[in-house]
Amino acid sequence: MSRKNVFVYRFYIPFVDTDAAGVVHFTNYLRYVERAEEEMFRSEDLSYKDVNTKGIWLPRVEAFIRFLRPLRHTDLAEINLWVSDYGEKHVKYCFEIKNLTTNELAAKGHLTIVCAEIGGRATKCPEMMIKKILKYYSEETCE
Amino acid sequence: MSRKNVFVYRFYIPFVDTDAAGVVHFTNYLRYVERAEEEMFRSEDLSYKDVNTKGIWLPRVEAFIRFLRPLRHTDLAEINLWVSDYGEKHVKYCFEIKNLTTNELAAKGHLTIVCAEIGGRATKCPEMMIKKILKYYSEETCE
Amino acid sequence: MSRKNVFVYRFYIPFVDTDAAGVVHFTNYLRYVERAEEEMFRSEDLSYKDVNTKGIWLPRVEAFIRFLRPLRHTDLAEINLWVSDYGEKHVKYCFEIKNLTTNELAAKGHLTIVCAEIGGRATKCPEMMIKKILKYYSEETCE
Amino acid sequence: MSRKNVFVYRFYIPFVDTDAAGVVHFTNYLRYVERAEEEMFRSEDLSYKDVNTKGIWLPRVEAFIRFLRPLRHTDLAEINLWVSDYGEKHVKYCFEIKNLTTNELAAKGHLTIVCAEIGGRATKCPEMMIKKILKYYSEETCE
Repeated sequence: MSRKNVFVYRFYIPFVDTDAAGVVHFTNYLRYVERAEEEMFRSEDLSYKDVNTKGIWLPRVEAFIRFLRPLRHTDLAEINLWVSDYGEKHVKYCFEIKNLTTNELAAKGHLTIVCAEIGGRATKCPEMMIKKILKYYSEETCE
Repeated sequence: MSRKNVFVYRFYIPFVDTDAAGVVHFTNYLRYVERAEEEMFRSEDLSYKDVNTKGIWLPRVEAFIRFLRPLRHTDLAEINLWVSDYGEKHVKYCFEIKNLTTNELAAKGHLTIVCAEIGGRATKCPEMMIKKILKYYSEETCE
Repeated sequence: MSRKNVFVYRFYIPFVDTDAAGVVHFTNYLRYVERAEEEMFRSEDLSYKDVNTKGIWLPRVEAFIRFLRPLRHTDLAEINLWVSDYGEKHVKYCFEIKNLTTNELAAKGHLTIVCAEIGGRATKCPEMMIKKILKYYSEETCE
Repeated sequence: MSRKNVFVYRFYIPFVDTDAAGVVHFTNYLRYVERAEEEMFRSEDLSYKDVNTKGIWLPRVEAFIRFLRPLRHTDLAEINLWVSDYGEKHVKYCFEIKNLTTNELAAKGHLTIVCAEIGGRATKCPEMMIKKILKYYSEETCE
């Protein structure tokens, strides 16, 4: 099945992200997802910082992740990120984390963000932001 | 409502855990939950290391977290952790993260772990481990 | 030799701080030193946040650390922190990191901070801050 | 002055590395240096993992860093890394961290590693490793 509109981000697993079990510590998986989001923004000439300058932050309000297979030091990882749902004030991302070295699906899940003023109240997301990230909208859902 | 059998772990938010939005980075919340689990083990004279010595690791297989309110540098945080479900090879924890400085619920969710050999196959959890952590079993569920 | 005026901070090594070599990742040692500094402030009823409220931040300008022996998951660590030098605008801390589980000196070094406005210019440290942390001044030097 | 033999690694500062002062937390600078070392190894078809497979680890024994100017979220950073000294069992790296967005030198220092068996005893570094990284040897010293 071809999945159009998915943002793809690849990188090698650094040593610092591993733990004494010899694998990437589970909390780093969500850091990779945020990194992929940042790279997606960057690829669209849209930076967090530009959004922040408008007084808007992008707090995360919900995350779900199923850990399937380990990632190890020096493995080549690939994040697949897409927008599965959005509204005036929120965006729901779905993601898959692949281990290209072992050819296994390492994790999958979702991450929901809102646009918010510094004080914390949800507010409308900048039109430009929504317009740009909808390039990665897909009807394919996730858990 | 009194919630019996809940493990309680308190600590002050360190600077390193904050981000440029002035609040704790969302991925650190799950680190706090793992820390609470370690302290719960320690309080029962049971250490990860003892479990590891038996060739058993405790990989996390699923996490869900709803972020409700921010935690800031120097805030006093309290993790509430309990076992809501378990089997021969897995344990499901529920957790709440409270901000005692603002008197708000900062986050809640669940974290499911399995007992596994280093290679990755799920295996029976050590009886001693299950026996001890069941002190924190509660029928109260979570999302 | 008795070393008066040293602030002592103890904690157990959490799993997340280890790496695939089975030991604490070297960059976490300096995080422990900062944590000890925060606890020292807290013990004197002085918080980073109070200092920040005056528009003053405490950027680190120099660090030196010699890594001597490893720290492992669940080891009991002890940070010894003292002020070895200070001026109107800076404080130099010396530190030792001990592994109380193996009874070895794990690391030692120094960390120099300045008081600075948010923009980055060095400025006078709050008198109250200097007064309070001088409780931990010692003529004993370090590398 | 042209500095031959320097390994150059560039990346954008991710949000997770910042702290509540709005800048990269100081302990992440040394993580960047290790990342640059990993990328240097990778560029020479030499991986930490290959070295580890021979039963050899590369613990860090000494680090010195002078923090000069901040790095902020989305800034483009450039690590310059070179070998300034080496022996049978150790390698001393010098590094500079540049902020290409502000055109400032953000930090400089050194990091010394040894080759060691898992148990901790220093041992001879693999010939292949030394041979390959000497491509980045420079007589230019650092602090």
